[in-house]
Amino acid sequence: MEIQTIGTLHTPHKELTDMPIQPKGATETQGYALLLPQYEEGLKDLEGFSHVYFIYRFHEATRTELEVVPFMDTVPRGVFSTRSPLRPSHIGLSIVRITAVRDNRVYFMGADMLDNTPLLDIKPYIEKFDQVKESRSGWMQASQDTVNKARSDERFT
Amino acid sequence: MEIQTIGTLHTPHKELTDMPIQPKGATETQGYALLLPQYEEGLKDLEGFSHVYFIYRFHEATRTELEVVPFMDTVPRGVFSTRSPLRPSHIGLSIVRITAVRDNRVYFMGADMLDNTPLLDIKPYIEKFDQVKESRSGWMQASQDTVNKARSDERFT
Repeated sequence: MEIQTIGTLHTPHKELTDMPIQPKGATETQGYALLLPQYEEGLKDLEGFSHVYFIYRFHEATRTELEVVPFMDTVPRGVFSTRSPLRPSHIGLSIVRITAVRDNRVYFMGADMLDNTPLLDIKPYIEKFDQVKESRSGWMQASQDTVNKARSDERFT
Repeated sequence: MEIQTIGTLHTPHKELTDMPIQPKGATETQGYALLLPQYEEGLKDLEGFSHVYFIYRFHEATRTELEVVPFMDTVPRGVFSTRSPLRPSHIGLSIVRITAVRDNRVYFMGADMLDNTPLLDIKPYIEKFDQVKESRSGWMQASQDTVNKARSDERFT
C-alpha cells in the first residue's frame, strides 16, 4: 500500500546501536520533526498539546521476523506482541513531548529513533481518548528503571 | 512509501455516518482483525496483553485537507492537531481491548473503524512505555461523556 510521508525526524542517533529503546529512556534527548513545506499549515494548533504520537518508518529495518527476542526479554515472542522494528510494515510509534512548533519544525523531547527517519504522521495525544486505566502487559514485566536504562544493540539490523 | 498490510479489520460499521468517533465511544462494539495467514505466527504471546494499538488505513478517505473542523469542535484546526482521516498519510490509530486471539483472528472491543479497513500493524499497549502522567490536550476540551456520545457524519468522506 502506498503511504504518503510528511517529513523526516532529526535526532542525535546516527547509528542503531546504543540507542534508547523507548521515549521514556530518552526524556532528555531532543529531536525535531521537519515537515515538507507543503504540510506546514497542518501544524496549526499543535502547540496546545503537550504530547503527540509520531508514526514513522523503521527505515533501516529491512528484514521481517515473526518471532523476535525483544530487548527487554530473553525468549522469542510473536512480533506483534513486541515493539521490534522487524514487523511486516516496519512502522514505528513513539509518544513524545512537544517543546516548540516553529514554521515547519516540531521540536520534541523523547527522541528514541534514528536521525533521518521518514515520518508518516503526527497525531495529538488526547487523554480522554487515549488514557488506559487498567491494563495487562503480558511478558513485558520490566521495571521502569530497566526501561530507562535499556539500550539497543544490533539484533534488529 | 510502500507499506505492507497485514490483514483487515472487521466491524459492524458498514457506512461512515453514525459511527463512534473513538474506541471510548465504542467500548461495547466488537470487531476482529483477520490477519493474512502468513503472519499468524506473529500473534504468539499477544493474548497476554489487555490492550493493543491498531494502525490502519482510512481507506475511504481520499482527500487531504490541512485544516479541518473536528467532530468535537466548531472551528478549523490544523489537521495534525486532530484525529481526522483527511491527513496526508490517511493513517488511523485506535487503542482497543483484546478479548481473544484464535488462529489468525484477534477479537476486540472498541471497534470505531469501518468494516474491511486495511490493517498495517498491531502493537501491544505497554503501560510502562505508554502511560502519560500529565498532559495538555489543547483545543480538545470535551468531557468524556461528550466523547462517548459523539458520532461521525459525512464531513470527512
